[in-house]
Amino acid sequence: MPEFRQDPNSGRWVIIAEDRAGRPSEFVSQLPRRALSRCPFCAGYEQETPDAIAVYPGAFKSGGWQVRVIPNKYPAVTADGFRVRGSSPPERPGESITTNPAILVAQPGIGVHEVIIESPEHVTSFTELTDDQAHLSLRVYQDRLATLSQNAFLNYGLLFKNCRGGSGATLEHVHSQLLATNIVPTEVEQELRFATRHFDQTGQCLVCEILRQELGRQARIVTETFRFVAFCPFASRFPYETWILPRLHGNRFELLTDSAILTELAALLQLVLRSFEKLSANAAYNFWIHTAPFHTTCEKSFHWRIELVPRVTTQAGYEWGTGCFVNPVSPESAAQRLRQT
Amino acid sequence: MPEFRQDPNSGRWVIIAEDRAGRPSEFVSQLPRRALSRCPFCAGYEQETPDAIAVYPGAFKSGGWQVRVIPNKYPAVTADGFRVRGSSPPERPGESITTNPAILVAQPGIGVHEVIIESPEHVTSFTELTDDQAHLSLRVYQDRLATLSQNAFLNYGLLFKNCRGGSGATLEHVHSQLLATNIVPTEVEQELRFATRHFDQTGQCLVCEILRQELGRQARIVTETFRFVAFCPFASRFPYETWILPRLHGNRFELLTDSAILTELAALLQLVLRSFEKLSANAAYNFWIHTAPFHTTCEKSFHWRIELVPRVTTQAGYEWGTGCFVNPVSPESAAQRLRQT
Repeated sequence: MPEFRQDPNSGRWVIIAEDRAGRPSEFVSQLPRRALSRCPFCAGYEQETPDAIAVYPGAFKSGGWQVRVIPNKYPAVTADGFRVRGSSPPERPGESITTNPAILVAQPGIGVHEVIIESPEHVTSFTELTDDQAHLSLRVYQDRLATLSQNAFLNYGLLFKNCRGGSGATLEHVHSQLLATNIVPTEVEQELRFATRHFDQTGQCLVCEILRQELGRQARIVTETFRFVAFCPFASRFPYETWILPRLHGNRFELLTDSAILTELAALLQLVLRSFEKLSANAAYNFWIHTAPFHTTCEKSFHWRIELVPRVTTQAGYEWGTGCFVNPVSPESAAQRLRQT
Repeated sequence: MPEFRQDPNSGRWVIIAEDRAGRPSEFVSQLPRRALSRCPFCAGYEQETPDAIAVYPGAFKSGGWQVRVIPNKYPAVTADGFRVRGSSPPERPGESITTNPAILVAQPGIGVHEVIIESPEHVTSFTELTDDQAHLSLRVYQDRLATLSQNAFLNYGLLFKNCRGGSGATLEHVHSQLLATNIVPTEVEQELRFATRHFDQTGQCLVCEILRQELGRQARIVTETFRFVAFCPFASRFPYETWILPRLHGNRFELLTDSAILTELAALLQLVLRSFEKLSANAAYNFWIHTAPFHTTCEKSFHWRIELVPRVTTQAGYEWGTGCFVNPVSPESAAQRLRQT
């Protein structure tokens, strides 16, 4: 069974998940490569995957579905003994494996790890989805986050996408993942603390203030729409790192109910990702949605966002040893180049 | 000029260093590759590098040196206007670039970025050094850390090695780097806080206690020598991550004065790295030395260590979005396999 473990020197959580070492990969890597004769995410090969958690119906010619949500076959966490859809806690909600004295702290790796397949056709990038598919994908991300956020045992869920070899993806067919856990990762807790402190001191949302400053300065703005702003953040860890923020304050991405807003967001997401692909053909990239931890009262202080990163740099000893990233492309240069694509 | 910037949402520092984007690379990467006709780190090509900061003499046939320390030609930080060897502060020690209100905080990227070339011959890995060369390399790491730690403006130095393509290295000739900065990276500060808290509560060093538990349990021990223990830490972020700890408490690696101790440590370092290379031929790896921040009084609470990591996994959206790493090889399995190599 997977296990959450906390580094006693820093409080940092890791997930030890041995079953994942066996997963097949379509991409060349330093791990042994196992060839896949057919893509298990394509319409017609549904039997190659675990049973669907949710299916969003579509044209018959595409296997009858537009988007399928399935459990990850090689999960980083396990839903064993845990009713995912309900709100009842697992059999062992608070069980803690600790040594005596309790310096080495672990918890069973119980949680939910889902895969969202965004197209029945074998396309590889979110940019290849039709407008309708991109819109529906965001709606599905919301559905899954909203469903899991009802579960009393789960405290945090990250929706993320790994696209193409080099991004951490093991299959090229377009898909995203949702990993929901009992633990709240240390970095997320830290950010929540910063947001709360700023709100308590000023009565304002920190990210709303950042947005005001970025819009005033313009140097790091990539593009603006009616309701959203895409910009390269001041302290970008990665070259071309881009954040998409809603202008209107909100702490939960999954609560955007207006269909027109989702359409606008889907188009903006595709636009930024296309600019990555223009800078580098077949760019590998990641994006993830920073929505508020579940069951928290941070309506006014936390501001949701999407972070997007093309994979350009390799992290090295300095980054791993300090957590401080060296970024060879300033966000001002990055924004300028992204604006020009 | 490079710049330190702090993420207002998390306090995390990054280094924005545009000049580094132009550096040549011998390894295939997503950045354009510039071919190198000859290795600038080999004896006989000293004129291809900046003037040496320190030279440790050796046989005449090897260009007269055993180890050369040079400024990094593509530094992540700059020593401009800053006397490196002395202890005087730079012209602009505390200058802070801040916006008003001060949410986006930056500092000039002043610091020291050195390269330590550990052999005049073109070898690629620390494991290919002779016993004497490995010993001398550690002595040089100490010299440089000790020298820079005297500088009142510098508060933290990380000695790290990137070896082979995939590790973040751009040149294959064996070398390490030392990056010393005014800022103390957030993760290092956090660890210092944890160590201090534990010491204040218990009167004991946290890492001494971890070491006692690991030695009692044995499951994660890779190997032991008279003065050192190599083990896979309980909350390893990476497969086969290994830490080397001194049994005798000490907060500064650079203060180990006994030559016999350095010989023992050099041999152990080579042994662990060779076991990485046995698991995977030509393994890319990183190691770094966690020594105490300069000018801190943490003699009793902070315990120095070396962290070693072969590059096996790719970090993906989940890791970047949460800081929580998914590790598919448990430290218990990793230690067992490393013991068996």
